[in-house]
Amino acid sequence: MKKFYIAKSRRLRGTPYSKRIENQGLTAYTVYNHMLLPAGFDGLEKEYFHLKEHVQVWDVAGERQVQIVGKDSTKLVQLMTCRNLSKSKVGRCYYAPIIDEQGKMINDPIILKLDENKWWLSLADSDVGLYAKGIASGLNLKVDVTEPDVNILAVQGPKSFKLMEKILGKKITELKFYGFSYFDFKGSKFFIARSGWSKQGGYEIYVENREAGLKLYDELFLVGKEFNVKPGCPNLIERIESGLLSCGNDFDNGDNPYECGFDKYIDVESDINYLGKKALIQVSKEGIKRKLMGVKIDLDKIEIMEEKPLQNGKSLVGYLRSAVYSPHFKKVVGIAMINKEYWNKKTSFELEINGKKSKGLVCDLPLV
Amino acid sequence: MKKFYIAKSRRLRGTPYSKRIENQGLTAYTVYNHMLLPAGFDGLEKEYFHLKEHVQVWDVAGERQVQIVGKDSTKLVQLMTCRNLSKSKVGRCYYAPIIDEQGKMINDPIILKLDENKWWLSLADSDVGLYAKGIASGLNLKVDVTEPDVNILAVQGPKSFKLMEKILGKKITELKFYGFSYFDFKGSKFFIARSGWSKQGGYEIYVENREAGLKLYDELFLVGKEFNVKPGCPNLIERIESGLLSCGNDFDNGDNPYECGFDKYIDVESDINYLGKKALIQVSKEGIKRKLMGVKIDLDKIEIMEEKPLQNGKSLVGYLRSAVYSPHFKKVVGIAMINKEYWNKKTSFELEINGKKSKGLVCDLPLV
Repeated sequence: MKKFYIAKSRRLRGTPYSKRIENQGLTAYTVYNHMLLPAGFDGLEKEYFHLKEHVQVWDVAGERQVQIVGKDSTKLVQLMTCRNLSKSKVGRCYYAPIIDEQGKMINDPIILKLDENKWWLSLADSDVGLYAKGIASGLNLKVDVTEPDVNILAVQGPKSFKLMEKILGKKITELKFYGFSYFDFKGSKFFIARSGWSKQGGYEIYVENREAGLKLYDELFLVGKEFNVKPGCPNLIERIESGLLSCGNDFDNGDNPYECGFDKYIDVESDINYLGKKALIQVSKEGIKRKLMGVKIDLDKIEIMEEKPLQNGKSLVGYLRSAVYSPHFKKVVGIAMINKEYWNKKTSFELEINGKKSKGLVCDLPLV
Repeated sequence: MKKFYIAKSRRLRGTPYSKRIENQGLTAYTVYNHMLLPAGFDGLEKEYFHLKEHVQVWDVAGERQVQIVGKDSTKLVQLMTCRNLSKSKVGRCYYAPIIDEQGKMINDPIILKLDENKWWLSLADSDVGLYAKGIASGLNLKVDVTEPDVNILAVQGPKSFKLMEKILGKKITELKFYGFSYFDFKGSKFFIARSGWSKQGGYEIYVENREAGLKLYDELFLVGKEFNVKPGCPNLIERIESGLLSCGNDFDNGDNPYECGFDKYIDVESDINYLGKKALIQVSKEGIKRKLMGVKIDLDKIEIMEEKPLQNGKSLVGYLRSAVYSPHFKKVVGIAMINKEYWNKKTSFELEINGKKSKGLVCDLPLV
């Protein structure tokens, strides 16, 4: 496939780490929340094997925060998500679908409860801040909605625990999954969560002070040498194998959270109030007619830039939305929106790309 | 400056024209409203001279439409903009600032009134659809907010009038600036406006049928041969020389529309109702302390990826936000947010880039 350069400008914002990571072997960018997001170094498969064995530092500043503060902040956050946050605790992260009044997906952030009246939504790629501002204005809520200058560094991979312990001390290893706390490094306070967009373990450091963040960045690479640290980025192979969904790739504003398999993050029973509740109650009564599932395809490479129909004879099985060659499964694996008639495992299908047909099978997520 | 590839995925949506334009010499992309926007071919200056003399076809499908339909659509559109739309007419385009409740810029779309209860906002790069949905939900407005599959082709340059006349007939030359109408091509209806993001004249074709659009695309290049047609894209030199502002580059959510020079699109006098009106009334009373102006700098090249301070001795003159070498002025020209003390013409300043200082002058917009 032909390659194209990215035309940089102020509109595609650089991060505090851009200059460093560009000198560490970066080859490609994508754009995420109007910001440059590193997207490639020395090859997807090399990076995949390294991530699964060692430790990587990711510049994921593009995961911008919507900060919602004020008397009505909890009300506003709940209005945007179908996940019941009524028992949420300060110091915890909540993965949650953000939906519109039609019950359709807008984003799937991690929601962080920093205080009773202070929340961060750590975003996938859409301007949820504008949605929040619109609702707040419409309902005249007492909130401040802002995008603070928070620039996340993710430390991911099995050796991330030892690397972070060596820099920040034993206490960091005691963080529970999706818990967060403040840690000190050379006199600066860092907000760190045990989270990240891989299933290889690790942390996300919510850097609030650019200068201090760069010092920590350098320390991660210095101390990380003994752990074979490398710069990295979310890895397409790892995330599809792990069944981590990508907003904009696997689902979009045409899909509802049931179709995305987010059932456990949907509350249509209790009396919480959110936009789209009526729509989701309706969906829960009627049931869905399609949902995201895994697929395995007999191919040794693929590049998906738009959804592709999967056929079984003349019948439409569904649409392939993300796919990549998996060295583990030794075939192409992917995520597809599959029609109800084909949910039973092992449904076979044909995928046609550039006139060439390949065979594949529907399977569960995460892939096994 | 180091170059990086763009990592494509479904999330960075392709356009109906992507395949064609990639085979016509495209070298670079940017991302605009989660969509690929062509950003370079055979060199910025070559493209600049060609645009000013001949005609170009631009794939600007990234200028997505927010469609607002329904009983309360006019109310909702007015709520988002400080421009008075109470006398707006069906069949006309209105350039308008979209602002938040704090009176800060969110977008600067062209608003098209298609019918008494049907509007399109032809967007710069931010998810105004989410803002509209939020307000509509908060106020329980009777509207449908959607992103229709409209993919704009711009035909720009002095020869665009002859090219379009040859394909669509005499009637197209009678369109007034910022007027629009429907035109027939081979049995398909095309919505065409006399507009575009250059000052070289031309049209924007709001393609609603992909297949018909591709036929028209091909016809533009076939018939365009005699007018030396080329594929193109918004040109940094031309747009800065012409004083066309770029949302995200020249202004962002930290700026108010007075600071952007949008005074004639702000109504704080009449009784129209919009979010941010209170804030703008306050600004209009107090006056602004900085505004966007032109600058000329004694340099023969520049690349701006973040705003750069302009100094006069130890005093801050303002911040440079966009800049490029202009073959016309034979120096670098740019757009900068200038502090009030320095609004008088011919204020000189120093700009430091990579340790090297250059001299420059503040001037009016558009540059003359």
